[in-house]
Amino acid sequence: MQPTKAYAAPAANIPLAPFEFERREVGPHDVQIDILYCGVCHSDLHQVRDEWGGSIFPMVPGHEIVGRVTKVGEHVRQFKPGDLAGVGCMVDSCRTCPSCKEGLEQYCEVGFVGTYNGRELSNGAPTYGGYSKLIVVDEAYTLRVPESLPLEGVAPLLCAGITTYSPLRQWKVGQGHRVGVMGLGGLGHMAVKLAAAMGAEVTVLSTSPNKQADAEALGAHKFVVTKDQAALKSVSNYFDFIINTVSAPLDMGMYVNLLRRDGTMILLGVPPEAPQLHAFNLIAKRRRIAGSLIGGIEETQEMLDFCAQHNITSDVEVISMDYINEAYERMLKADVKYRFVIDLATL
Amino acid sequence: MQPTKAYAAPAANIPLAPFEFERREVGPHDVQIDILYCGVCHSDLHQVRDEWGGSIFPMVPGHEIVGRVTKVGEHVRQFKPGDLAGVGCMVDSCRTCPSCKEGLEQYCEVGFVGTYNGRELSNGAPTYGGYSKLIVVDEAYTLRVPESLPLEGVAPLLCAGITTYSPLRQWKVGQGHRVGVMGLGGLGHMAVKLAAAMGAEVTVLSTSPNKQADAEALGAHKFVVTKDQAALKSVSNYFDFIINTVSAPLDMGMYVNLLRRDGTMILLGVPPEAPQLHAFNLIAKRRRIAGSLIGGIEETQEMLDFCAQHNITSDVEVISMDYINEAYERMLKADVKYRFVIDLATL
Repeated sequence: MQPTKAYAAPAANIPLAPFEFERREVGPHDVQIDILYCGVCHSDLHQVRDEWGGSIFPMVPGHEIVGRVTKVGEHVRQFKPGDLAGVGCMVDSCRTCPSCKEGLEQYCEVGFVGTYNGRELSNGAPTYGGYSKLIVVDEAYTLRVPESLPLEGVAPLLCAGITTYSPLRQWKVGQGHRVGVMGLGGLGHMAVKLAAAMGAEVTVLSTSPNKQADAEALGAHKFVVTKDQAALKSVSNYFDFIINTVSAPLDMGMYVNLLRRDGTMILLGVPPEAPQLHAFNLIAKRRRIAGSLIGGIEETQEMLDFCAQHNITSDVEVISMDYINEAYERMLKADVKYRFVIDLATL
Repeated sequence: MQPTKAYAAPAANIPLAPFEFERREVGPHDVQIDILYCGVCHSDLHQVRDEWGGSIFPMVPGHEIVGRVTKVGEHVRQFKPGDLAGVGCMVDSCRTCPSCKEGLEQYCEVGFVGTYNGRELSNGAPTYGGYSKLIVVDEAYTLRVPESLPLEGVAPLLCAGITTYSPLRQWKVGQGHRVGVMGLGGLGHMAVKLAAAMGAEVTVLSTSPNKQADAEALGAHKFVVTKDQAALKSVSNYFDFIINTVSAPLDMGMYVNLLRRDGTMILLGVPPEAPQLHAFNLIAKRRRIAGSLIGGIEETQEMLDFCAQHNITSDVEVISMDYINEAYERMLKADVKYRFVIDLATL
């Protein structure tokens, strides 16, 4: 066992504080990674506050992990010490159900093992995430990280990146498509970059006019202030796809009506209160609403390679480990462009 | 002009009564049809009661029309006097927009001309539907009706049939698929017959156990009483498709959870109050909700040919024209198996 420094939430609604625990020894299929950066996802906050129920404490959050391999097990083939490596939302799954067999481990029918706030399949031990100095992960759930990209900006790709990349690929978004993006946060800003890189025309749909310059800097071709009725009308029946990353209460009908015939809204955000869905808005133009959850391991690798090829990373604000509680407060106010990333050298 | 006997609603919430109006003369592209049967669709009731707003009175409802051709214009190629013919929900559309060009006239971007409660594109004259002795329709919006099927059972195919057939085709439903059907009414009973004929395993999802025998008689392979928690659990994550024909308030989440990964709920019913949609129910299994509106003319013809080939018609209760107001009352209580069809010989 290897003593590991970390930050943990001792219980729901208690600030995170220094914590030490033991990582397992490197098994024959394991990769040990010295963590360099870990992104701060909104779901970290939901889980440390036990807003989804069933949280396991003490909790070491973090599932947007990049670092350098320090040790590998004897059967490991794809990694050697010194390589860059990444870990996303999953560190294991049943590997035998149809979803796992299809490379869609995120939909594992037994339930995937979360990188933190999960339990190891072998012994039920709680999993601890990336707000820590090192992690030991099965090679099959470890990603190769391109050397060409700034690592702090790579970390959020492991969750925010794949969460937006996967549906864009699933729905074959590309040249000739008009894509609307709702919500310009961690997910939304990645959706803009990725959809634009795939060749789509990207429009940011925002309630606040002061995000226009930022949207354009990220690669958006158009910007629509949704409170401006004339602007909104100009994109009625317009989009092939809308990426909905909003996790606040919202008027679904207003946005669905911006889809053209056969257009699809992809739901990534989970509003606290379920929004109302007017059936006729879908029926009248054969529109669709589809969910999507992160992405499989193979697709996550594909996404990282795509990002390297297109020089895409997340826009981040690097923080020290002891800033995490303040960072959470700022996230609640959407006061971050667009992702906090912890520099683990500060721990 | 040709004097035509009919039944009309003089105004919202006033019972239908005998009415006479003039049909246009047969133009070069027109087909004149002596109406034999006309189905009674729930949307007839919504529109005579002006529940969707904008109703045009007096209103002669009816868009599930079959009859025999009595006269054709000089340019008509596909029909001759004596042929059977059908008319569905549309009698015209712009013919030039992308949707019309693709044979999806029901999504015409100008708006299709409803068989009743619409206005002719040429002169704005109100359209009158199939609760009448004859109709004159452009050949391009007239369907060929197979001689092999009982005509009273064919009439509802023109709306209830195509409304369920179109999404089943759009989503390529067939062998190996599990299809759930919510609501065993005019639409639902056609969904059961058509999905079964396409090779799918069909399950009727019903709140009342006493519909089981009927469901099986229609061709359903399974029957699940949704109030029975154990039965409901047995079809959790089960269906590839759910055809939702319910137009009453409903718990969407409960039904969405019956879809397996990548499963699709097809919305055909419009509940009076928009149901709530819990985003996570879609996200967790990459599920989808999709709308669908009737079907295009070409697809309606394909549906009629499919029904002839598979010997499929609607289960109907034939009524006389003067029974219509009572029929409406019974429809409100779902007291019909499964469609009222007016025998126009009684007018």
